[in-house]
Amino acid sequence: MRDLVEIGMGRTARRAYELDDIEIIPSRRTRSSKDVSTTWQIDAYRFDIPLITHPTDAIVSPGVAVAVGELGGLGVLNAEGLWARHGDVDEALFRLVQATEDSDDPSAPVKVLQELHAAPLRMDLIAEAIKQIRESGVTVAVRVSPQRAAELTPDLLAAGVEILVVQGTIISAEHVSRDGEPLNLKSFIADLDIPVIAGGVGDYRTAMHLMRTGAAGVIVGYGYTPGVTTTDSVLGIGVPMATAIADAAAARRDYLDETGGRYVHVIADGGVMTSGDVAKSIACGADAVMLGEPLAAATEAPGQGLYWTASSAHPSVPRSLVAEAVDQELDLRKLLFGPSSDPRGVTNLFGALKRAMAKTGYSDLKEFQKVGLTIRG
Amino acid sequence: MRDLVEIGMGRTARRAYELDDIEIIPSRRTRSSKDVSTTWQIDAYRFDIPLITHPTDAIVSPGVAVAVGELGGLGVLNAEGLWARHGDVDEALFRLVQATEDSDDPSAPVKVLQELHAAPLRMDLIAEAIKQIRESGVTVAVRVSPQRAAELTPDLLAAGVEILVVQGTIISAEHVSRDGEPLNLKSFIADLDIPVIAGGVGDYRTAMHLMRTGAAGVIVGYGYTPGVTTTDSVLGIGVPMATAIADAAAARRDYLDETGGRYVHVIADGGVMTSGDVAKSIACGADAVMLGEPLAAATEAPGQGLYWTASSAHPSVPRSLVAEAVDQELDLRKLLFGPSSDPRGVTNLFGALKRAMAKTGYSDLKEFQKVGLTIRG
Amino acid sequence: MRDLVEIGMGRTARRAYELDDIEIIPSRRTRSSKDVSTTWQIDAYRFDIPLITHPTDAIVSPGVAVAVGELGGLGVLNAEGLWARHGDVDEALFRLVQATEDSDDPSAPVKVLQELHAAPLRMDLIAEAIKQIRESGVTVAVRVSPQRAAELTPDLLAAGVEILVVQGTIISAEHVSRDGEPLNLKSFIADLDIPVIAGGVGDYRTAMHLMRTGAAGVIVGYGYTPGVTTTDSVLGIGVPMATAIADAAAARRDYLDETGGRYVHVIADGGVMTSGDVAKSIACGADAVMLGEPLAAATEAPGQGLYWTASSAHPSVPRSLVAEAVDQELDLRKLLFGPSSDPRGVTNLFGALKRAMAKTGYSDLKEFQKVGLTIRG
Amino acid sequence: MRDLVEIGMGRTARRAYELDDIEIIPSRRTRSSKDVSTTWQIDAYRFDIPLITHPTDAIVSPGVAVAVGELGGLGVLNAEGLWARHGDVDEALFRLVQATEDSDDPSAPVKVLQELHAAPLRMDLIAEAIKQIRESGVTVAVRVSPQRAAELTPDLLAAGVEILVVQGTIISAEHVSRDGEPLNLKSFIADLDIPVIAGGVGDYRTAMHLMRTGAAGVIVGYGYTPGVTTTDSVLGIGVPMATAIADAAAARRDYLDETGGRYVHVIADGGVMTSGDVAKSIACGADAVMLGEPLAAATEAPGQGLYWTASSAHPSVPRSLVAEAVDQELDLRKLLFGPSSDPRGVTNLFGALKRAMAKTGYSDLKEFQKVGLTIRG
Repeated sequence: MRDLVEIGMGRTARRAYELDDIEIIPSRRTRSSKDVSTTWQIDAYRFDIPLITHPTDAIVSPGVAVAVGELGGLGVLNAEGLWARHGDVDEALFRLVQATEDSDDPSAPVKVLQELHAAPLRMDLIAEAIKQIRESGVTVAVRVSPQRAAELTPDLLAAGVEILVVQGTIISAEHVSRDGEPLNLKSFIADLDIPVIAGGVGDYRTAMHLMRTGAAGVIVGYGYTPGVTTTDSVLGIGVPMATAIADAAAARRDYLDETGGRYVHVIADGGVMTSGDVAKSIACGADAVMLGEPLAAATEAPGQGLYWTASSAHPSVPRSLVAEAVDQELDLRKLLFGPSSDPRGVTNLFGALKRAMAKTGYSDLKEFQKVGLTIRG
Repeated sequence: MRDLVEIGMGRTARRAYELDDIEIIPSRRTRSSKDVSTTWQIDAYRFDIPLITHPTDAIVSPGVAVAVGELGGLGVLNAEGLWARHGDVDEALFRLVQATEDSDDPSAPVKVLQELHAAPLRMDLIAEAIKQIRESGVTVAVRVSPQRAAELTPDLLAAGVEILVVQGTIISAEHVSRDGEPLNLKSFIADLDIPVIAGGVGDYRTAMHLMRTGAAGVIVGYGYTPGVTTTDSVLGIGVPMATAIADAAAARRDYLDETGGRYVHVIADGGVMTSGDVAKSIACGADAVMLGEPLAAATEAPGQGLYWTASSAHPSVPRSLVAEAVDQELDLRKLLFGPSSDPRGVTNLFGALKRAMAKTGYSDLKEFQKVGLTIRG
Repeated sequence: MRDLVEIGMGRTARRAYELDDIEIIPSRRTRSSKDVSTTWQIDAYRFDIPLITHPTDAIVSPGVAVAVGELGGLGVLNAEGLWARHGDVDEALFRLVQATEDSDDPSAPVKVLQELHAAPLRMDLIAEAIKQIRESGVTVAVRVSPQRAAELTPDLLAAGVEILVVQGTIISAEHVSRDGEPLNLKSFIADLDIPVIAGGVGDYRTAMHLMRTGAAGVIVGYGYTPGVTTTDSVLGIGVPMATAIADAAAARRDYLDETGGRYVHVIADGGVMTSGDVAKSIACGADAVMLGEPLAAATEAPGQGLYWTASSAHPSVPRSLVAEAVDQELDLRKLLFGPSSDPRGVTNLFGALKRAMAKTGYSDLKEFQKVGLTIRG
Repeated sequence: MRDLVEIGMGRTARRAYELDDIEIIPSRRTRSSKDVSTTWQIDAYRFDIPLITHPTDAIVSPGVAVAVGELGGLGVLNAEGLWARHGDVDEALFRLVQATEDSDDPSAPVKVLQELHAAPLRMDLIAEAIKQIRESGVTVAVRVSPQRAAELTPDLLAAGVEILVVQGTIISAEHVSRDGEPLNLKSFIADLDIPVIAGGVGDYRTAMHLMRTGAAGVIVGYGYTPGVTTTDSVLGIGVPMATAIADAAAARRDYLDETGGRYVHVIADGGVMTSGDVAKSIACGADAVMLGEPLAAATEAPGQGLYWTASSAHPSVPRSLVAEAVDQELDLRKLLFGPSSDPRGVTNLFGALKRAMAKTGYSDLKEFQKVGLTIRG
C-alpha cells in the first residue's frame, strides 16, 4: 500500500491515479456476454445501460436526449445552455463552427461561446425543449447550476422534469458566502419530490456531504477530457478519476451503513474516452458514467463534430478548448451497441462493456465493481 | 518489495510490469555463445529454439509452419482462419491489402477480415493444409477456439495434428454459462492422446487451473502488440507481461510440487517485439515465446508485410488494428539465426538470445530464468 | 511517506517533485471569488497580488516595472542588465531580434547577449531608470548580483531603491573563497535600511541560512523555464520546485519559531508557466511567485516576444536559450486580471488564482498554503 | 529507501536508475570556480580533467589521442579498429560516409563497418599509430578485447603502450569456457608492468572481481548512447548508469578496505551526453568518465560527424546504429574548455563541471562524489 508522500519537509500529498494508470485483470472465471446484464436504476427510473450524457450542448439536443433515452440511457439537457437562450440554435452553432474554421486561435470559438451564453435565459425555450423530450416518453432530465438552481427549478418541474442534475465544475454542500444567498442543497433537495443528481466532487468528504443532502446520485469529476479541458493549467486543480471514483464509492458504502440502507449512485464524469474507460470506471466503483466527447462523433450530435464542455463558456475564466471537429459517421445506436469494425474502442461502447464483464466472469454491474485491477509499474 | 497499491479508499490494485519496464543485468560470469543451448521439449517433441508462432494468418501459412518446424521451432496454423475457410487464400489476402491501400480508415481492413471470417469452415481445406505440413515431417500443430474445440478436434486428429493449441484472447478453466455447452477443458484434454497447449491467461490462479486440466502448456497473454492490439482501449483489460509470466511460472512451480513432478510449459504471448524481449520473457520465467509481428517481415509470411491478430476479425468487438505493411526482405532463417547487419534487435532473434545468455553466464533456458533483473526508477 | 531512495549501494538520493507532478484537490468547502483576497506585504510595502517579476530584460523595462507596480505587483529591474549598460536599449534588443531571425543556431542570440553584457555598467543610466520608476510612485526594486552588490548598492540607494533583490542562479550565505572579498550577506544586510530579498536557493538549509542573514524574502529556484533554461544539461543541477518551495516554507516556519516571530517571505522562482502553476506554488507554501516567460506575451514587454533568463548572458557557461518569439497581443492588465477567452491558463493569471482559492474554500493566501494536494501515480 | 520489487510472484527485480533520473542539489555552500580542481591520476599518470575517450574509431584517431592528452585527458586508441586494419583509414571512412548518404537503411553503414572490421589486424599499422602518439609525449593508451588481449599485448608493449584498456561490451573476471583458452585476467595483469583498465561491468560483484584481478581502473557500462546503442533491444541487457556507478563505487570502497589501501578507479562509460551528465557521473561516485558521442562534434574527430560504438561492427549481432552526422564546428579545446555561447551543455564540458562543483561548494572530484542528489518523483 502507499498513500501519502512527503513532497517536501512537513508537506504531504496523496498519491492519486487516473483511469489510464489502471487496467482490469482477468480472473479465473469467464462467461458468455449473453449472460451479462448492465441494467441499473435511480429511484423508479430504470436504465438498460449505465450511460448519462455530460450536459454540454456539443452533444445533447432535445432530440439526442430522446434518442439516448430510447436506447436505454439518460440524456441530460443543459437548462442554462444554448437551447435555453437561443430560438435558433442552428444559427448559433453555425457561428461557432465558422469561428473554428476562420482562425487557429483557440480563443476565437471560446469568445463566440461566451457571447452566446451572455444571452438571457428564456424559460419559454427551455420549457418547449423539455416538452419535446417528455412527449417521447423517455425520462426527462436537465442540468442546472448551483447558482441558479433555486430560481429555475419551479418552472422546470412545471415543465415536466423528472430528474434534476445540479452540476458545476466543483461544488460542495458547504458553500461559504458573505453576501448573497448560496444554495442550501439539503433544504433544496428536501423540498423536491424528484431525485437530484449533484456534483462534481473530487474527494471522499465532499461526496459524503452531498450524499447527506439527500442527493440520489453524486457526480465525480468535472468532465475531464484530455486535450480539451484545461482545469489543471488554469486552476491547478485536478481530480484523478480512478482515485476519486473509488473514494466516492467508499463514501457510498459508509453512507449506506450510516443510514441503514440508503444507496446513493456514484456517477463518473471524466476521463471516459473509450469503452475500456467505461469498464474501468465501473471497476473502480462507479454505478454509471457520464459520456461526453465520445458522443460527439454521433450523426445526431448537434455540435457537428466539435466538442467542448460547459466551462468553455465561462465569462472570465474559461477552462475548456473547443476540440477540432471529428467525422460524424455513425448513429448513436451503432456507437453504443455496434456491431463495430473499428478496433479503437470508440464504437459499440456498451457491447464492449458487456464483453469485458463476460471475459472477467461477472454478470452484473454491482459485481463488476469488485474485479481485479493492476497499476502499471 | 511493493505489491498492492491503494488507488482509493478501500480499493486496491496490484503493481504490474511490462517487459519494457525491466532489463537483464549482467552477473559475475560470462561464457561463449558456442556453449549455450536453447533446446526445450513438450512431451516427445523436441525443439532447438523456444519459438512458437502466434496463430494469425498474417504470418502462418502451411508453408511457414513447415519452414518454422524445419528451423527448430513450432509453427501453429489457425484451424479457424483463412486456410480453413477459403480455397483461394491469396485472393482473400489481396482483398485485404487492397483495403489497406484504398483507405486510411482503420475500420476498412477490419471489415474485410470480418467478412472473410464470416465464410463457413471447410474441413476439407484445413485437412489439406494439415496434410501439407505433416508430409514435411515437422511437428503438426493447429489452433482452435474454446468454442469450437470439441466440434473440430476429431477431424483435426484424423488429419494428423500432433499438438493442439486451444487459444482465445482470454480463456479460463471455469467458463460459466446458462445455456449451451461450454468446453470442459479437463475432460476434453483427458480424452485426447496428444498434448494440449491452452490460453491465454493473465494471472496465477487461471494459469494454475489450466495446468490442473492437464494442459501440457499454458499461454500467458493475448498477443499484445504495441500499436496493433487494442484490448485495453476496447475492454479495459490488460495483461502486463513481465508480471503475468512470473505469476504463471510461480503456478508452474507450485503445480510441479502439487503433482510431484508434472512440468507444464509457460509460453509468453505478448510484448515480444525484439530479440531483447525474447530474452526478457525467458528471464521472467517463460519456457518459450509466441512470436507474431516480428515474423511479418519474413519473405515467407503470407500477410505481405501486414500484421493483425485473430481478434481483429471479431464480428462485433474487434480488438486489433491491421498494422501498416513492413518490407519483407529477409527469409525466416535470417530472421531467426542471422547473421545480421541490423542493430535494432529484429533479426538474428535467437542468435541474440544465445548471446544474451552467454554474456550473463548461463548455458540453458532453465538456468536463464534465474538471471538478475532491474526495473527502471 | 517516502523520502530517501538508495540509487546504488550506499548512495542515496532524495525524492523530489516539480509543480507538474502535483495537483490541487478540492476540499469540502467552496466560496465565491468575490470573498477571496490575494494581498500580502513585505515590511511596509503592501501588494494586491503575489507577483514579483523575474529580473530579465526580456520582460522588465522601467516602464514595465511601473505598470506592474500600478497593477498591484512588484516589478524588479535588473541593475546589471541592458538598461544599466546601454543608452539605446531598443537598438541593443534589435540586434538580438536580428540574431534570432538570421540563424537557427541557438548560439547566435546568446552570443549577442554575451556581447551586450560585456559593455561596462553605467550608473548614470541605471540611476535614470530608477528615477523613472520612482516618479511613478510605485515601490522601487532592482536586482544586483552577489558579486557586485557591495559595489553598486550605495549608488542604488541614493537613486531611490526601496527593495533590493540580491539574486544569482544559486547563492549561499556561506560563499567560500581563497582570494577576493566574497559578499558577507549578514553584515551587508545589517548595514542596510531597506528590505533585501535574496536567492535563489534549492534546499532547506540554504534557505534557513539566508533567513538568518536578515533577508526579508528568500527566492526559491533559479527561474526554471521548460525549453528555455538548461541548468540541468549544463551543470547537472536541478531544483524541483514543489519540493524546494515546501522545504523553504519549513525553514520559514522553523525560523519564525527560532526568532519568536520573524516572518521571512518565500518567493517561488521557477516552473510557473500558467495560472495553475501560480496556484500550485502558493499551495506548496510560497508567499509569492516570480513570473518570467508568461509576461513575455505582454504588449509592454521589451523583449518583443522573445524570452531568456539572466544566465543566458553568462560569458563562458550560458544556461538559458533565447526562446522563440510569442505574439504580444494582450496588455499586462489583461494578462493579470482578464477577462479571458483563452482557456490555456496564460491570461487572467490572478483572476484564476482567486477562482482556484474560491473553489477550494480558502479566502487568503496564507490559508491556501494548506490546501490538499495529490501526486500522480 | 526502496530496493527490490516483486514484479511477479516469487520473482524480484531491483530498482535501478539512469543519470537522467537524478539531479544534483545545491548545498549550503558555494565557492569560486577558480578554487576548484578536477585533477586525478592513475598510478604515475596525472590528468587535469577526468576524461577518457571511448575507444571508437568515430572519435579517436592517433591525432585525437595526442590532442586529448595535450588537453589534460587520456585518449584511447582502439588497437583492433580501423587504424589496426587499414593503411588508408580515410578511404575506409569515406566508404562509411557514402553508405550513410546512399541509404536510409540503418543496416547499410553497419554492413560497411562489418566488412571493414573483417580485414586482418596488421601490427605494423597499429605500431605506427602508437609511435605517433608516443612521440607527442602524451600518455599512450590503447584498447584491446578480452579475446585478443593475450595475443596482442606483447607487441603493444613493445610499441610503447603505457596504459592498457581491456574492454568488451560486458566482461567478467570469470569467463567460463569449455573449449579454447579464455583470458585469465588475474595472471594476465600480474604479468604486466603497466596499469590495466578493464570493463565494462554492470554490477557490484563483477566490479569487485575485476578489482581483485589487479586492475588499476574498472569501466562501468558499455558506452550506452541514447538513440545509438541498442543493447537493450538486441540482448535485453541494460546497465542503468547512476546505479551501476554507485555500486562500483561501493566495490571500490570495500576493496580499499579489504586491501588496506588499494584504490581502484571507477570510470563511467555510458549516458554521458552533456556537461551535466559528466557532473552527475562524478556525483554518483565515478573518478572519471568515458566520452563518446559528445566528441563526434569536434573538428578533429575522424568520423566526420558520424558516431557509432565498437559493437556496431559485430559480425553477427551488431548493437549500435551509426548516428546521423553532426556538424563539426568546434575544436576539442573549445569543446572541453570553452568559452561557449551554446547553452545546451555540449561545449565547455569541463569548464561547466568546475562550475557545478563551485556552485555546490566542492573543491575537488573526490569531495564532489558526496554532493546531494535528488530523484524525480
